[in-house]
Amino acid sequence: MDKTSFSNNEGKPIRCKAAVCKKAGKALVIEEIQVDPPQAYEVRIKILCTSLCHTDVTFWKIDSGPLARFPRILGHEAVGVVESIGENVDGFKQGDVVLPVFHPYCEECRDCKSPKSNWCARFADSPLSNTRRYGMASRFKDSTGEDIHHFLFVSSFSEYTVVDIAHLVKISPEIPVDKAALLSCGVSTGVGAAWKVADVGEGSTVAVFGLGAVGLAVAEGARLRGAAKIIGVDLNPDKFELGKRRVIKEMTGGGVDYSFECVGLASLLNEAFMSTRTGSGKTVMLGMEKHAAQINLGSFDLLRGRSICGSLFGGLKSKVDIPILVDHYLKKELNLDSFITHELNFEEINKAFDLLEEGKSLRCIIWMNK
Amino acid sequence: MDKTSFSNNEGKPIRCKAAVCKKAGKALVIEEIQVDPPQAYEVRIKILCTSLCHTDVTFWKIDSGPLARFPRILGHEAVGVVESIGENVDGFKQGDVVLPVFHPYCEECRDCKSPKSNWCARFADSPLSNTRRYGMASRFKDSTGEDIHHFLFVSSFSEYTVVDIAHLVKISPEIPVDKAALLSCGVSTGVGAAWKVADVGEGSTVAVFGLGAVGLAVAEGARLRGAAKIIGVDLNPDKFELGKRRVIKEMTGGGVDYSFECVGLASLLNEAFMSTRTGSGKTVMLGMEKHAAQINLGSFDLLRGRSICGSLFGGLKSKVDIPILVDHYLKKELNLDSFITHELNFEEINKAFDLLEEGKSLRCIIWMNK
Repeated sequence: MDKTSFSNNEGKPIRCKAAVCKKAGKALVIEEIQVDPPQAYEVRIKILCTSLCHTDVTFWKIDSGPLARFPRILGHEAVGVVESIGENVDGFKQGDVVLPVFHPYCEECRDCKSPKSNWCARFADSPLSNTRRYGMASRFKDSTGEDIHHFLFVSSFSEYTVVDIAHLVKISPEIPVDKAALLSCGVSTGVGAAWKVADVGEGSTVAVFGLGAVGLAVAEGARLRGAAKIIGVDLNPDKFELGKRRVIKEMTGGGVDYSFECVGLASLLNEAFMSTRTGSGKTVMLGMEKHAAQINLGSFDLLRGRSICGSLFGGLKSKVDIPILVDHYLKKELNLDSFITHELNFEEINKAFDLLEEGKSLRCIIWMNK
Repeated sequence: MDKTSFSNNEGKPIRCKAAVCKKAGKALVIEEIQVDPPQAYEVRIKILCTSLCHTDVTFWKIDSGPLARFPRILGHEAVGVVESIGENVDGFKQGDVVLPVFHPYCEECRDCKSPKSNWCARFADSPLSNTRRYGMASRFKDSTGEDIHHFLFVSSFSEYTVVDIAHLVKISPEIPVDKAALLSCGVSTGVGAAWKVADVGEGSTVAVFGLGAVGLAVAEGARLRGAAKIIGVDLNPDKFELGKRRVIKEMTGGGVDYSFECVGLASLLNEAFMSTRTGSGKTVMLGMEKHAAQINLGSFDLLRGRSICGSLFGGLKSKVDIPILVDHYLKKELNLDSFITHELNFEEINKAFDLLEEGKSLRCIIWMNK
């Protein structure tokens, strides 16, 4: 596959195939759409492959309220090649291999410049528009000329998409593209949570609640940091068992040093919290709470020297940290291969939803043109 | 005052005056009691001065349940001189100036040896017996020979008391004893929370909720760390105002780097939490929740990169860290003098309760024999 052959469409719309979500929970429809050229600070990229993350499924199902927007192009974990750039775009050129990332990094605000934060003060608090700098303006049109909504500033279930430079990372072309796609969201989130948020130490003990791709990436990050014991707790939410904390406390002589909640359930977060050691236990919440529920913690349990924190995208600054993860993969330190359990052609994309919903896949790579 | 003149009572009971709490919420009664000699790992000390902390008042009022124990000798913030030692006591001898500390430090367990924890795995989870190693055995007897209960392993409202070595710190005799007493609980808790728990950085912004001795000690600790802005929020719990967070966010351009809850109200903890900056804000809970209420946090507010932690005794390891604080005082770096707003003789001890309850005092020093 030649990643860099483009007919010259610079400044012009491109017609291509996309998998369009027309109604909540209904199968995506592959049809021809129009992708407009990138505006200032934007890049149009050709998607090489994409994968499916639980957040896609969550939004796919939302059928009312301001988050229910149709038609829409979902998908936010992917890898692509730059096809053309808009004005004021530095650092990207046609042919660059790039990862789109849902979490912004403007590089210029106080928080982007601080080593303590990955919460871009300029952009991170407005995650719901179509384009980063143009509000509800869309770069996608359907066959009747109507706008199609973007998703998380990525919309990778399309042969071409337009991404703001605050959501784009240039990476080494040496990494196989399917492995690279994993670093666009889920695996980076898990490894980052272990490395940057919890700062897991050598010889420590770790409990991971929820063993999807994110949870297993936490475990992989903890392994690379030399954790002495990593305990995985996988749960069927329909049969949610309390009391895992007791087993964990016995296994570790008093509780783990670090626990990670990777599902997005307030009740599970409490279980993760209580499984940590008094005096020093640290709990990291990674899952987006599915019911927007409040977190309830016992005040005395907190006073006993425990801490709890949350993060998006594993506390990573995309443009700084993703190239570091790529490097760890190329040095054969970071294991990515085992996260890919399935591969499909773009035409089969709806099967990926079934596989994830049935708990059969960790990550299913969807090839745009193989 | 000669700190070190003792008639030789080693191995014998001592008869002395103590302020005994006979009934919840009733004035303490000063009467003659008997203080037995120290057993193995215990030290009998002569109290030089003591002060009153909110925790004394809290327990003084408890009128039912397992925590309501009468008669009892309250008081846990004090300074004294070693009168005699029991068996297996290393590192203390007659005449040493010492601080008793409610929070244990055995020096031998995994947590005492870890730099990350001040939660002694051996002792910290059993805070309610009379003596540390002898359960409900008491060293105090009233005139009829009945046991009097201890309080927090200190019971400093007595001319003499018996303290386990896990609760005792030898300090330099150079520090004036009234200033030293402050380091036995409240001021150490506040300074420790700023230094060891939050690790307040130079140029950072800090909000302190509750400006009693502990809250002001947090501010003092933050000042010494070079905080750029310290915002104090004092509250009358009867007129609890929500919305302070908004003012703080305006004052700091988005929220403080660190907030501290020093009152012990779950609702206030939430306010402190929400006053911190997204992406990096850290909240420390120091106050013991008065109603044992649950802490409620918005899951998305946590996911936005905030963290929250609790600690007892400011995360300090007593024997290691109190001498460091004493040293900072002797070098005229740490300001202790302004915490002392009142002084009383032992006979007037009940006035100290009134002053604290009326919000008139920060710390009232009670002199045993001046």
